[in-house]
Amino acid sequence: MEARLQTVEDGDVNALMHDMGARAKAAARVLALADPAKKTAALHAAVKAVRADSARILQANAEDVADAKKSGASSAFIDRLKLDEKRVAAMAEGIETVAGVPDPIGQVIAAWGRPNGLRIERVRTPLGVIAVVYESRPNVTADAGALAFKAGNAVILRGGSDSFRSSQAIHAAMVRGIASEGLPADAIQLVPTRDRAVVGLLLSGLNGMVDVVVPRGGKSLVGRVQAEAKVPVFAHLEGVCHVYVNAPADLEMAKKIVLNAKMRRTGVCGAAETLLVDRKLADSHLKPLVEMLIDAGCEVRGDEATRKADSRVVAVREEDWSTEYLDAIISVGVVDGLEAAVDHIDRYGSHHTDSIVTDDREAAEAFLARVDSAIVLHNASTQFADGGEFGFGGEIGIATGRLHARGPVGAEQLTSFKYRIRGSGQTRPG
Amino acid sequence: MEARLQTVEDGDVNALMHDMGARAKAAARVLALADPAKKTAALHAAVKAVRADSARILQANAEDVADAKKSGASSAFIDRLKLDEKRVAAMAEGIETVAGVPDPIGQVIAAWGRPNGLRIERVRTPLGVIAVVYESRPNVTADAGALAFKAGNAVILRGGSDSFRSSQAIHAAMVRGIASEGLPADAIQLVPTRDRAVVGLLLSGLNGMVDVVVPRGGKSLVGRVQAEAKVPVFAHLEGVCHVYVNAPADLEMAKKIVLNAKMRRTGVCGAAETLLVDRKLADSHLKPLVEMLIDAGCEVRGDEATRKADSRVVAVREEDWSTEYLDAIISVGVVDGLEAAVDHIDRYGSHHTDSIVTDDREAAEAFLARVDSAIVLHNASTQFADGGEFGFGGEIGIATGRLHARGPVGAEQLTSFKYRIRGSGQTRPG
Repeated sequence: MEARLQTVEDGDVNALMHDMGARAKAAARVLALADPAKKTAALHAAVKAVRADSARILQANAEDVADAKKSGASSAFIDRLKLDEKRVAAMAEGIETVAGVPDPIGQVIAAWGRPNGLRIERVRTPLGVIAVVYESRPNVTADAGALAFKAGNAVILRGGSDSFRSSQAIHAAMVRGIASEGLPADAIQLVPTRDRAVVGLLLSGLNGMVDVVVPRGGKSLVGRVQAEAKVPVFAHLEGVCHVYVNAPADLEMAKKIVLNAKMRRTGVCGAAETLLVDRKLADSHLKPLVEMLIDAGCEVRGDEATRKADSRVVAVREEDWSTEYLDAIISVGVVDGLEAAVDHIDRYGSHHTDSIVTDDREAAEAFLARVDSAIVLHNASTQFADGGEFGFGGEIGIATGRLHARGPVGAEQLTSFKYRIRGSGQTRPG
Repeated sequence: MEARLQTVEDGDVNALMHDMGARAKAAARVLALADPAKKTAALHAAVKAVRADSARILQANAEDVADAKKSGASSAFIDRLKLDEKRVAAMAEGIETVAGVPDPIGQVIAAWGRPNGLRIERVRTPLGVIAVVYESRPNVTADAGALAFKAGNAVILRGGSDSFRSSQAIHAAMVRGIASEGLPADAIQLVPTRDRAVVGLLLSGLNGMVDVVVPRGGKSLVGRVQAEAKVPVFAHLEGVCHVYVNAPADLEMAKKIVLNAKMRRTGVCGAAETLLVDRKLADSHLKPLVEMLIDAGCEVRGDEATRKADSRVVAVREEDWSTEYLDAIISVGVVDGLEAAVDHIDRYGSHHTDSIVTDDREAAEAFLARVDSAIVLHNASTQFADGGEFGFGGEIGIATGRLHARGPVGAEQLTSFKYRIRGSGQTRPG
């Protein structure tokens, strides 16, 4: 089947995708009403199937990796693509964690009565059909599939061409597990062709059959999806995240948080890209913070005050302040207190995740109130920007928009709601 | 000023709108942090100002009405446009009601702790800058302005050309009230030109300065906004609302609810457009329901069984089932029980508001669970689809999408949220 589908004509891709959309819609109707225990059992069966298929998944992945190497992919790219036994085990565990979080569907979010006796409830429902467009990481197939399924949605997965075989093997296992519990296999569909026309079709919404598109990948993918999509998008844009050290602040705590925020993993969207230091701390804290970063292998690009603190600091350029390095590089600057820090973050940041380190509780509260980002922290690392760390059982990404989903997008964020009203014959006067 | 702005060149409109966007953004930043009591006081001052300006508003409206009459507008159009003392008083009362609802900003929606000691809160924030594009009803100026303001947003209002002077007069009063409490007048801006290029500019998002667009008006306006907008849209599409009478059902209650749902006001989106009757009730309930509707002045378009019940019933056509009449016309059909009713509503409905009338509690629960509409009711009229009736203090419209806002859009629905995390030096392991 794969060979045939990889050479389908344009018309066929169109028909294929509309057929997938219709099947997703039908599966979504069934899943919306599925018993929570059955959904959980189906996810556990998917975990088992992924574990049982481990060798098959690794074989498929080895073929993907071989192809990528042949075409000269970078080692960072190969690292994102490559699976090993540990990564497959982690993937299975990820599905297991999602299986274990509370089922959001049917939850009564709010309930109240009206003077006329009507009882109104706002109750969680699935979103419907979610399209996920992603790149080389094959584990997204498992993460996104499991989260969407948990929230009662049907999902159409369009993975990267380079991880095509890996995603197919993972998908086959998951679907076998789900079907074994009598739930529709069409609830998790993987586009069975590398044809690039698929993305455009998904972004068109397939005649209203796709309710939301989630792009998961680099800037250019997310940008394309946002520009072209005719359906709502949960975009996670860049994470130009800040740590601001405000006087008074414990130096050891500041060092620990800054080091972790920048260096724990430099390639994640919650990694800090800028360190701002209160001018009151320029003499006491700036030098040790900068030395620590450089000694840890981080390039520091600093303003004048920062360059004075350590001769190894290179000059920061205007564009650096808004750059998501995703690497062991950091912009460092001295600011005139909280107000200036908030202004800097508003001007150069990406409304993703920003942290203040300070012993001044009042300043911390002002920072938390005034910084307009999805996640704001006091005395904690920006690297906590993660659905798992929030207790969501995983995430499909970190949304930086202000509509519907903001911050880590877990199962609960992949839901909608409706109003359920119970009456006893009420009619509206007037 | 009006005359100048009405003849601005293209370049000027562009500059004008971007300037309005920038001023809205600045006002939104101030309003997001404004003291709730101050916002309430500002709205009460706006109420006072509208009442004080009543004569001025009516004079401006009289000029609008005269122009509309000259250009041959229909009497229904004139009725939507025309204000009188009672309507201005109702408008002021509407602002007063919004002033009185709880302030949504700063509300902690959820709070939990993590094993590492982090305390996470999800807290309500404003959306930012809202653009409202509407048609001839001048009261939208007051409703939309007050609701957006209550939720800490800045709003750019683009009213209909025909109500241009009325909206200006209402807007002037509101802004005077708000400014008298020291809050930014730019929080509520009205586009000061009839130039049609304005709508396209607002839909472009003004370089990211508009966060969401709310179209309020007829099908063609909403359709255009949805097709063109580069920013998220809270669209309220048609209300093809159903009442389904399921056996067993009290005939008197069914009559009361059907009459109210269809005839209380035929021009609102929550008005019923289709009546479905369980085949088990065809002999007992169908005839009295149809007779009642026809006697009340409603045209009944029915299927075969309905035509047999009363000779005055005309034949329903396929397209009638999906038509929002907004008039004293109803489609009536007999269905084979709950399953068939749910299928009919899924196929022809608009996911707006649907009601079941029945004494069978189990059937009612199945209907409430399975009908995928923003509002589902048991034993109550569809005309309760209204923010005021929900206790929201008003509404900017009824959203039929599944993202962010669904159902009546009041102040609380015009908000976003962020995560506030308090730590004590936590860093992320691994």
